[in-house]
Amino acid sequence: MKPNDFMQFAQKLWPLNRSLTGRGVVQTLQLIKEIIPELSIKHVKSGTIFLDWEVPKEWNITHAYIIDPSGNKICDYSENNLSLVGYSIPILGSYTLDELQKHLFSLPEQPDAIPYVTSYYKEFWGFCISQNLRNKLVEGIYQVVINGTLQNGQMHFGELVVPGSSKKEILISTYICHPSMANDQISGIVVSTFLAKWISENPERKYTYRFVFIPETVGSKYYISQNYKKLVKNVVAGFNITCVGDERCYSYLPSRDGHTLSDQVARHVLNTEVGDYKTYSWKDRGSDERQYCAPGIDLPIATIMRSKYGCYPEYHTSLDTLENFVTANGLFTSYELYQKCLLTLENFCFPRATILGEPKFDKRNMKPYLSQKKDYVNHILISEFLTWSDGRNSLIEIAEKCNVSTLELIPIMKILQDSNLIIQIAGRKNNN
Amino acid sequence: MKPNDFMQFAQKLWPLNRSLTGRGVVQTLQLIKEIIPELSIKHVKSGTIFLDWEVPKEWNITHAYIIDPSGNKICDYSENNLSLVGYSIPILGSYTLDELQKHLFSLPEQPDAIPYVTSYYKEFWGFCISQNLRNKLVEGIYQVVINGTLQNGQMHFGELVVPGSSKKEILISTYICHPSMANDQISGIVVSTFLAKWISENPERKYTYRFVFIPETVGSKYYISQNYKKLVKNVVAGFNITCVGDERCYSYLPSRDGHTLSDQVARHVLNTEVGDYKTYSWKDRGSDERQYCAPGIDLPIATIMRSKYGCYPEYHTSLDTLENFVTANGLFTSYELYQKCLLTLENFCFPRATILGEPKFDKRNMKPYLSQKKDYVNHILISEFLTWSDGRNSLIEIAEKCNVSTLELIPIMKILQDSNLIIQIAGRKNNN
Amino acid sequence: MKPNDFMQFAQKLWPLNRSLTGRGVVQTLQLIKEIIPELSIKHVKSGTIFLDWEVPKEWNITHAYIIDPSGNKICDYSENNLSLVGYSIPILGSYTLDELQKHLFSLPEQPDAIPYVTSYYKEFWGFCISQNLRNKLVEGIYQVVINGTLQNGQMHFGELVVPGSSKKEILISTYICHPSMANDQISGIVVSTFLAKWISENPERKYTYRFVFIPETVGSKYYISQNYKKLVKNVVAGFNITCVGDERCYSYLPSRDGHTLSDQVARHVLNTEVGDYKTYSWKDRGSDERQYCAPGIDLPIATIMRSKYGCYPEYHTSLDTLENFVTANGLFTSYELYQKCLLTLENFCFPRATILGEPKFDKRNMKPYLSQKKDYVNHILISEFLTWSDGRNSLIEIAEKCNVSTLELIPIMKILQDSNLIIQIAGRKNNN
Repeated sequence: MKPNDFMQFAQKLWPLNRSLTGRGVVQTLQLIKEIIPELSIKHVKSGTIFLDWEVPKEWNITHAYIIDPSGNKICDYSENNLSLVGYSIPILGSYTLDELQKHLFSLPEQPDAIPYVTSYYKEFWGFCISQNLRNKLVEGIYQVVINGTLQNGQMHFGELVVPGSSKKEILISTYICHPSMANDQISGIVVSTFLAKWISENPERKYTYRFVFIPETVGSKYYISQNYKKLVKNVVAGFNITCVGDERCYSYLPSRDGHTLSDQVARHVLNTEVGDYKTYSWKDRGSDERQYCAPGIDLPIATIMRSKYGCYPEYHTSLDTLENFVTANGLFTSYELYQKCLLTLENFCFPRATILGEPKFDKRNMKPYLSQKKDYVNHILISEFLTWSDGRNSLIEIAEKCNVSTLELIPIMKILQDSNLIIQIAGRKNNN
Repeated sequence: MKPNDFMQFAQKLWPLNRSLTGRGVVQTLQLIKEIIPELSIKHVKSGTIFLDWEVPKEWNITHAYIIDPSGNKICDYSENNLSLVGYSIPILGSYTLDELQKHLFSLPEQPDAIPYVTSYYKEFWGFCISQNLRNKLVEGIYQVVINGTLQNGQMHFGELVVPGSSKKEILISTYICHPSMANDQISGIVVSTFLAKWISENPERKYTYRFVFIPETVGSKYYISQNYKKLVKNVVAGFNITCVGDERCYSYLPSRDGHTLSDQVARHVLNTEVGDYKTYSWKDRGSDERQYCAPGIDLPIATIMRSKYGCYPEYHTSLDTLENFVTANGLFTSYELYQKCLLTLENFCFPRATILGEPKFDKRNMKPYLSQKKDYVNHILISEFLTWSDGRNSLIEIAEKCNVSTLELIPIMKILQDSNLIIQIAGRKNNN
Repeated sequence: MKPNDFMQFAQKLWPLNRSLTGRGVVQTLQLIKEIIPELSIKHVKSGTIFLDWEVPKEWNITHAYIIDPSGNKICDYSENNLSLVGYSIPILGSYTLDELQKHLFSLPEQPDAIPYVTSYYKEFWGFCISQNLRNKLVEGIYQVVINGTLQNGQMHFGELVVPGSSKKEILISTYICHPSMANDQISGIVVSTFLAKWISENPERKYTYRFVFIPETVGSKYYISQNYKKLVKNVVAGFNITCVGDERCYSYLPSRDGHTLSDQVARHVLNTEVGDYKTYSWKDRGSDERQYCAPGIDLPIATIMRSKYGCYPEYHTSLDTLENFVTANGLFTSYELYQKCLLTLENFCFPRATILGEPKFDKRNMKPYLSQKKDYVNHILISEFLTWSDGRNSLIEIAEKCNVSTLELIPIMKILQDSNLIIQIAGRKNNN
């Protein structure tokens, strides 16, 4: 897979009008299924009650726009689907400018940008417009046209479970409910889809992988409510993937607990592969980690992003595009970083030496025979690895003691395992 | 209660000659009982043996002074009860200046001040005098008059137990054995008495409150020896109250353990309500925490003070007065701060959400329906509170994570409890 | 014992040609036995297999040198035993300068120094020479003479077990396999021998002491393989003693674990007795701690040195001498510091007060009867000691809380124990 494959897939996803429900969501899932054919596209009926929530009505729009007093079409949903407030009710009517203003949204600080606004849980209609255009609106009668339906139907989501040799699971979740925005929507779908493809095509796998493509919040909550016992029992690590498309600074948002395996892996990979990245705190949460890590659910879900939602100027506006913000390289390098996280998870263990004391390195050609001053206090990496392989240090902790990345240690660990000098144990050895 | 009530009570207590025993102690306890009528005034006989100690004789003085060679009365106990060394034996005699000097105490560095000196456990007599006056003493014969008794009698102390819905106790201890000094004596009695009044008059109460008014050291040791099992079993938190009358910097002296519930509460309330305060260490102990926190007793007793004993120049001298050091406002604000500590203790718990994942805030009018960029990553305090309500974080820890005081969280906790969204559990939930 | 005794013993040890095996090792052990007659000199046959290793052949040299083209004798082993590469095979032959160069070792950065080189585990011969001399070698034929044997024989080592009242052991290990170098060889033998003498002659002893004099690496590994269960069961602390002869900065190398009793004692004694010392990490290991602390062996062995092996310019060269680097005072003060470590170990315990609350100090003459301002908040050391004697703090932790050394506390602990005010318990009291 090349960076361009990522951008081409992103461009296909771009024009669809995604929301919590509706055709755009189904089309998005079908495009994902073209890349990972094993994906199950599932649905649940509007009005279904779960936890403290209810599955919303299905929302579908055919066209939506405003005719201004001069007869020009403005806020045309077919030109930019951000123009219509999400979940606007169908309507046909004439309004004075004053009346219309109560239904318009713009951003005075970003006068060129159309904002992204939704009203999922209260019946309402509205349009989003650039401040510049709004400033030019003149007195007169405006014709508002919102054609479509908001009625009982289905909420759709996708699920792919790739079995591994263990029933323990890695959970990758991304959301599919935002319209045409690049970093805060499409990037998450693209990277998650290609990770799913990579995992599916890779025959060696310790863990079972669960990929979930769902509407944010209501979707993840519904998914958790249906899979609660299984998730709590099996998920050992996972990531909520979003905002992984640009090339600005990397970001890390911890799980609520902050010390789960996912957090350890994310920090280690960011420290060794990226170095300079921004660490947020749980106070800064805002995506589905809010559900996965909620009290009583407590899944070990962390998030690695590029520019984090809410923290870049283009966020939730028409400026978050594939042209001037998200790049093929940004998508691809985020994908590669998540691959490194998954490799680290696959190899995560507590290595334990099987031999008492140092093995004789020289007879194994791991050290020179001649002992000279200059060689004396230089430990080779293999000896550093072995000295910490006492079953009490994890692969990540050993890497940090050796000042290298886990990826550098994995081949050494394989050599030592093949020489029967270590075994891998799954859990930390107790003191005594 | 107003600041002036505190000062008026302080002024009534001022003239009494308190010591380990004697009429001044009994009169002090009677004045306290006027404010908290349920107070029990108890006593124990001189010579009673307990632990490594013995109840001292009862000491009562009618008059004490020196007649100088010119016939002037100096060091008159009736003018300032610090003038006589505490527990001085009765005596009547004539002495040369040289002989007298061995029984005089003054402070060269504070030449205006009369120091406070005692000799509880060795028979002795002496007078305390300002250095300035001492310098003026001339050669000649001095008549010494100490009239009174030092004989078997009683040691008195006060106790008030206010039952709560739980048998678990909060212990408030203060001492009543110092003569006329304001910060290091009277302030502790005043604040403790008014806290007892407030607790007694407050019908809603989780804990049982035990207020103890005792002679320092020998009194608290005796009290512990008589109530050991009960105290060790029931006391969950408490404070030794002393030096709470001036308006200089607040001070915190930890329990010996340093991490008890009392310490957590004291530090949290000081951090959120005061901000700038001085933290002492166990090395700086000097009052009854020495007994309550001793090995094998280990009660969770911390101390919040204003200017700490031993650490302000007026300490243990005639300069520690109600006129130039302790203020009505100092007494009252110390009282208010202890109220906040007790409120935090009363509400202390480990809140646990009863719902899986975030509740639907909008349908409860806790969040707007419309989702806009500006609202997106602002968590409201109620949501911050809930996310940490996993039964593993205490109310104080949640307040610290939310960067607010427990007092701000208490009303939110009540709303959530009334909505059945959380329950309060008494002890920390284990991992798993 | 005086500093000069240490230097005289060092001078006796100096000329012997030590290696893993051979006459020099046996003579060294005999010199040690002159000072500690109870020493057992043991041996094991070449070729004996243990763990991943094998006991090496015995190496004995009678003479070794090179005759240069002018007929001069150079690299004469009888003048400096570093001149011959350790474990060189016997040989007699003529070589051109080019051929000879492949068998010569020198240090361009230290042109005056003869380096120390060995080839224990691969058959080889070679000579070590100063760079200055090497630069002067001319073309021509060189006669090489190495006369001696490398054949099956014995590996020797010494062991002294001094029984104490407990079967629990303190292990002191030093190596005996380096030829004539002062700090990195002789100092370790000298200090260990005199410590063994001191322990043997001292009738009061809680622990059993095990002193081991062995060839480095192969010797310690063999010793561990033969005594594994006993060592793992009994050793509670210990030190690998090496590089303790000069007067430069003290050094501390932790055990692999870093927090064993030996580490606590070493750090405490260095902090209180030395103050300014260099702390190395486990990455810097290089002597027998590599074996004693290996995974699965995990003995609590730390090391206190002066100039650490590998970290001083004279290291492993002919410059590491008794004339210009190691001193009588350096040897003696290192010995004294280790004595303090052993005294701290002997007295290590968790003191627990037997009395509830503070004892009455004045009646025991531990505090003045008169209470004056200046005395009030000064705790005497005995009271500080008692307040922490709750069975949860070790002697070292109490010393650190009191800001003194354990050596200052030991007499106080004895007084309190004799007064039945404390008992010593061996292990930390649990909370509850």
